[in-house]
Amino acid sequence: MSETVPTRETIEMAHERIKPFIHHTPVMTSQFLNDLCHAELFFKCENLQKIGAFKARGGLNAILSLSEEQLKNGITTHSSGNHAQAIAFAAAKIGAKAFIVMPDNSPSVKINAVKRYGAEVTFCKNTPEERQRTVDVIIKETGATFIHPFNNYEVITGQATAAKELIGDVSEMLDLIVAPVGGGGLISGTALSARYFSPGTKVYAGEPEGAADAVLSFKSGKIEKAPYINTIADGLLTYLGDKTFPIIKDHVTDILTVSDEEIVTAMRYLWERMKLVVEPSGAVSVAAVLKYKAHFTGQKIGIIISGGNVDLGKLPF
Amino acid sequence: MSETVPTRETIEMAHERIKPFIHHTPVMTSQFLNDLCHAELFFKCENLQKIGAFKARGGLNAILSLSEEQLKNGITTHSSGNHAQAIAFAAAKIGAKAFIVMPDNSPSVKINAVKRYGAEVTFCKNTPEERQRTVDVIIKETGATFIHPFNNYEVITGQATAAKELIGDVSEMLDLIVAPVGGGGLISGTALSARYFSPGTKVYAGEPEGAADAVLSFKSGKIEKAPYINTIADGLLTYLGDKTFPIIKDHVTDILTVSDEEIVTAMRYLWERMKLVVEPSGAVSVAAVLKYKAHFTGQKIGIIISGGNVDLGKLPF
Repeated sequence: MSETVPTRETIEMAHERIKPFIHHTPVMTSQFLNDLCHAELFFKCENLQKIGAFKARGGLNAILSLSEEQLKNGITTHSSGNHAQAIAFAAAKIGAKAFIVMPDNSPSVKINAVKRYGAEVTFCKNTPEERQRTVDVIIKETGATFIHPFNNYEVITGQATAAKELIGDVSEMLDLIVAPVGGGGLISGTALSARYFSPGTKVYAGEPEGAADAVLSFKSGKIEKAPYINTIADGLLTYLGDKTFPIIKDHVTDILTVSDEEIVTAMRYLWERMKLVVEPSGAVSVAAVLKYKAHFTGQKIGIIISGGNVDLGKLPF
Repeated sequence: MSETVPTRETIEMAHERIKPFIHHTPVMTSQFLNDLCHAELFFKCENLQKIGAFKARGGLNAILSLSEEQLKNGITTHSSGNHAQAIAFAAAKIGAKAFIVMPDNSPSVKINAVKRYGAEVTFCKNTPEERQRTVDVIIKETGATFIHPFNNYEVITGQATAAKELIGDVSEMLDLIVAPVGGGGLISGTALSARYFSPGTKVYAGEPEGAADAVLSFKSGKIEKAPYINTIADGLLTYLGDKTFPIIKDHVTDILTVSDEEIVTAMRYLWERMKLVVEPSGAVSVAAVLKYKAHFTGQKIGIIISGGNVDLGKLPF
């Protein structure tokens, strides 16, 4: 796997590589939210992406970048969330085996989604150590290639294609793009695409107050863990990696934190006004724009809605 | 207002007339639902239309067809649902006054939506007689023009533009289009557009078992009321009109009834799989296709998702 920061050309190549398998998701607008923010908002709807999240992009690009030899032994990862589905989906698309390690307390809806793609699921206790140990056993037994959910340049390159499409689809220049930050795969890809395809566009990250590691790392200059974890945005709990953090440090303008209440308010606007099912993590960038709207008056703002995988039985409203 | 059945030309003219004010809504697909039905489904997403429902089309066309003289005195209608918003929205677009009669037990979210467009709301008791009496008083006092929610050829012509767009956007010929039936504005417009723009395409209606007037009328040959009213699909409670029924009788192949349970199942698929917020009435056509999928194996099916205005506090799951 690649050991250099993605270039304009690698992002363009990745886009061509994954295009046959992904949706070119629509960019939507809302007069109501424009009026509310006194700005012009362009929503990149990755909740409408395959598997319901942008992660399909990174997973596909990583798998499609492997050699025939590597693919023969399959792919493995650990995840209870969208990355598990992305890898299972991408492996199924090209007929490779996927070995997914999931915590034994994962919701059955997520386990079933992964199994539906034909992946082999191995359960483990829900600690980082147990997850990694279980993956290590699989790698030893099968020779499968491990694909990290974000700290992997092919994954970052894949995620970068969402902002590339957004920039291409909005006819005028965006003043800024906002995307959520968890481990940093999406935001670092977004920052690179802005740099290459729309150099005048600033990139901001949205982060939950209850998993505020990135904003801390951004300020201190080294990777930090969150002071505490307590947020509804369950896709953004991890901290940054040594591949994502330097890109963020160099190319992201600022990291804006939002409370769970602000996230749920943003979610409600997306559901009620735009008729889009968006998961809490997917509404964080919208929440950030709403909270800091006074800073962005009159600007053209691209917003990445990152995913829509929610349990309808457990809605916050 | 027009007293003749819409022609190909009137539908084309209506489309040009309303285009500047409406969304050309996307046609979406779902591999999951294709696999489930063993057919190829094309979802026309009118839940993403202005005001969250196709009714914006008919309301706009009716209002834009009025003379300057008529517009001066404003527009009136009675509705507790999407038609009220459609008329308020359309009137606001061209700077005309709207007088909307709403039952005094209407949900405040709907009242606020209508008021937000600047319409003047008059409340009345929730009986057909009181609604009409209140509108009659307004007409007498203001000279406003009454726009019926469905039994009006300009409204039918406006609703026809949804199927016209769907037919234009799907590159292959659709074997059938399914739309919900309440008063019959959408389904009669859909049937006319299919006849004019894709003569080989059959049109089916979906109707809730708990408001089964159209299927009864279709069989008996005259406008009937439902034997009972008890359904979650609150947008489809009315019976047909003397303008919609003849079009349905002549151009609709069959009316397929579905239970509330089947409607909620369809809704859940649309929310979970396609990440679309769809109201119960809007999921009725999908429920009909799912229920009768054995009849449609291998076919290309256009499905009109008619609206997405739901109260998030009162979801059926």
